[in-house]
Amino acid sequence: MTMNRRSLLGAAGLALGAPVVTVAQAAEVAQAPHKEALKAPPPPPVTKILAEFIHDSSYDGLPDNVRREGVRSFLNWVGVAIGGSHHETVDIAVSALQPFSGPPQASLFGRTERFDIMNAAFLNGVASHIFDFDDTHLKTIIHPAGPVASAILAHAEMKPVSGKDFLDALVVGIEVECRIGNVVYPNHYDAGWHITGTCGPFGAAAAVSKLMGLSVEQTIYALGLAASQPVGLRESFGSMTKSFNPGRAAANGLFAAILASKGFTSSEKMIEVRRGWAQTISTKQDWSQITEGLGTRYESALNTYKPFACGIVMHPAIDAAIQIRDGEHVKPEDIKSVDLKVHPLVLESTGKTAPKTGLEGKFSIYHAVAVAFVEGAGGEKQFSDRAVKDPRVLALRAKVNPVVTPGVDPAQVDMVVTLNDGRTIHRHIDHAIGSVEKPMTDAQLDAKFRDLADGILPAAQATRVLTLCRSLPDLKDAGEVARAGVQGA
Amino acid sequence: MTMNRRSLLGAAGLALGAPVVTVAQAAEVAQAPHKEALKAPPPPPVTKILAEFIHDSSYDGLPDNVRREGVRSFLNWVGVAIGGSHHETVDIAVSALQPFSGPPQASLFGRTERFDIMNAAFLNGVASHIFDFDDTHLKTIIHPAGPVASAILAHAEMKPVSGKDFLDALVVGIEVECRIGNVVYPNHYDAGWHITGTCGPFGAAAAVSKLMGLSVEQTIYALGLAASQPVGLRESFGSMTKSFNPGRAAANGLFAAILASKGFTSSEKMIEVRRGWAQTISTKQDWSQITEGLGTRYESALNTYKPFACGIVMHPAIDAAIQIRDGEHVKPEDIKSVDLKVHPLVLESTGKTAPKTGLEGKFSIYHAVAVAFVEGAGGEKQFSDRAVKDPRVLALRAKVNPVVTPGVDPAQVDMVVTLNDGRTIHRHIDHAIGSVEKPMTDAQLDAKFRDLADGILPAAQATRVLTLCRSLPDLKDAGEVARAGVQGA
Repeated sequence: MTMNRRSLLGAAGLALGAPVVTVAQAAEVAQAPHKEALKAPPPPPVTKILAEFIHDSSYDGLPDNVRREGVRSFLNWVGVAIGGSHHETVDIAVSALQPFSGPPQASLFGRTERFDIMNAAFLNGVASHIFDFDDTHLKTIIHPAGPVASAILAHAEMKPVSGKDFLDALVVGIEVECRIGNVVYPNHYDAGWHITGTCGPFGAAAAVSKLMGLSVEQTIYALGLAASQPVGLRESFGSMTKSFNPGRAAANGLFAAILASKGFTSSEKMIEVRRGWAQTISTKQDWSQITEGLGTRYESALNTYKPFACGIVMHPAIDAAIQIRDGEHVKPEDIKSVDLKVHPLVLESTGKTAPKTGLEGKFSIYHAVAVAFVEGAGGEKQFSDRAVKDPRVLALRAKVNPVVTPGVDPAQVDMVVTLNDGRTIHRHIDHAIGSVEKPMTDAQLDAKFRDLADGILPAAQATRVLTLCRSLPDLKDAGEVARAGVQGA
Repeated sequence: MTMNRRSLLGAAGLALGAPVVTVAQAAEVAQAPHKEALKAPPPPPVTKILAEFIHDSSYDGLPDNVRREGVRSFLNWVGVAIGGSHHETVDIAVSALQPFSGPPQASLFGRTERFDIMNAAFLNGVASHIFDFDDTHLKTIIHPAGPVASAILAHAEMKPVSGKDFLDALVVGIEVECRIGNVVYPNHYDAGWHITGTCGPFGAAAAVSKLMGLSVEQTIYALGLAASQPVGLRESFGSMTKSFNPGRAAANGLFAAILASKGFTSSEKMIEVRRGWAQTISTKQDWSQITEGLGTRYESALNTYKPFACGIVMHPAIDAAIQIRDGEHVKPEDIKSVDLKVHPLVLESTGKTAPKTGLEGKFSIYHAVAVAFVEGAGGEKQFSDRAVKDPRVLALRAKVNPVVTPGVDPAQVDMVVTLNDGRTIHRHIDHAIGSVEKPMTDAQLDAKFRDLADGILPAAQATRVLTLCRSLPDLKDAGEVARAGVQGA
């Protein structure tokens, strides 16, 4: 015995279709309106609220610190996109998609191929997440720039836009992405969603809608189409699909805005209603995360950048090692022992004593501390196969003694280095460099950029791209950054 | 105080990243392995099981009834894709995507434009769902053919394939799509997901993997990439985004298989594990829906087709009206009254007494019965603005008296027609035409096809396309169907 299920779900649900429910289910569904009536208060119209925010935003209205952090987010993203541009993951995607690409509308950082903007957005987005070395909105674990910047830079190459308008779109996209993430985090992430891939399409759609100058209604529909295309599950972590997610999120948001710009319709309440995005994809919805301080308090100003190419569990120890090495001019060969007081999670998650590959090195506190003393850094190069085989690193690695110590919290480390001459040097870290409390300086971001570009772009070209990123608000054509970042430019 | 969250989540989770949790959250996560240990038994390796089923399937191994239903599913899909090909929704999508399309690799039914296979798969998939008149797997409310056929027909135009291999891929895709749907239905659909869009990428990826002859490992990764790209929320019902969903599902599955074919990796257990697809996207997982009878019992043999272009709540009454009209040669002007005994849901969902538009007509039992007596059909034409304004329909509409009657179940109707000469004619319907119990005949499917193609393709061309669909297993090149279905072919 069968019945039209959608016919029980109001006008929208009624729209045709041959779905079926048992009468038991029918009865249950028939109760739904009553059940929902009990759920007071109804959600605020956040889809429309966000669309109006996107529509009304302007560079002139952005606070200075927001503009500044926007430039830093962009610069960090360009660096990681260049750094990942020749990884096998990108090579495979480029060769797979070349036969289907449209006109050569947009560039790929660090490469020579050109693609249509949908594919270019995807590919730059993938490249920028390869090392998981991109920016992080710590409240949601979203890597905000990837989905947003990948989409708007591709679009900016096709349709030139000033650096100021580009920066406004970038900030708006990151803001929408992170605020929607705040609505559902942590339940949504705990459930298994890769939150950068599920919130990313909103950020990309918002930013492209802004660049295209869409009306509020068109922007509402762009957000609705973005809501219909979440990307990524945490089970993919450790595979190429993890980098796929921000790339596809960028392409999905761009696809959404392009369709909406021509009049493709969606729901006007896709984010908030019962069978919309947030209630379907998460058990938690905190609408105030969207409504409170929108346009005055900026989540995008809270963006952070990683100084070290590994999980932040090891960042305090690497920070301490580099401070001692550079501050006290300590040479690895002078070190007798390195004693660390650490939180239990450090050994749980990074306790590998003898890593054999660069990737394994990212899970070894012994390697991380040793290579930091030897090379004074914790970048991708320090977690390479080369680095974990370096005799000087191997020698020092054996002298690193992490000790789980009550009272040391996860953000802290206490390090005592004993030298062969008997001298001891002590450093206590409460917040490692790169944390919200101790952000990376512009000089450190520049150094990270140069390090990522090294080996992919000539130093002079890297400097040129870096300078363009720093002067983004003054550029007549933001697409210049993309063209300056290709191989052989 | 912050900590690397992913560092708590095993090797995959450990992979780099700078996510953050409070220590409270850290403690909670630290418990996870223990919690999960309690969840016995672990899920079967369904991703691998499905990949092996896909890899090992062959036309020769398909039961006759499965082959037959595959052809009917394909024919019905081609008909609805032609029928929807000139709807505003498709016009908008075509104009929006033309500037970004790659080489003209594939055709659009009923049109002249050609697109790269990704865009063509999307556009034919959108067109096929416009009228919500496509096929239905009643156990899950999935419209199975759209995502699968749209993807493989586009691919078949680029890389020719025999009708037999095409049919095998179609059946395999529908089987994977519907069985995964069975795993999570109804909870997943009730939550708000448009199940055709969330399971569709699996079907498309499976079918394209089969067409491309991918290895089991490549197919596993294609399924993993498909799992990472679910599409569609029920809130979009009633907007263009509803048709967007099966189209994007087709493109996403095709995209997944294309990447996997070049060595793009994903998880090997993406569907079943804790932070994989089914446990993240649904509160219900019935793994036996995949493992039981795979390769012997075919869900694809349960596919159904709608005879009437409206929700099936009204199908029994339309069926009764047409039977009385044609069986007893009843003319509308001879009718004094039409009394219907119906289930309460009929008036709840289709109680509009005076519809003003074709769409409103789909929610009016009065119109549906009247137009069925006047025109002897319930197709898209009978739910047009023209039909709801037809004076003969308006006159009869006023004589239709539906009465909610206890004991009449949703699949039933009891109709008594009283004629002006005093004669009465009675019909009782237990299962309307198009139900599992009373499937549409081949002749009825052919008539539906011709009706959908009417006004879009010349009758002779429609017949040619119909004949090609019927002879699919004998075609040397399945792509012939696509080329024969374009405007001006």
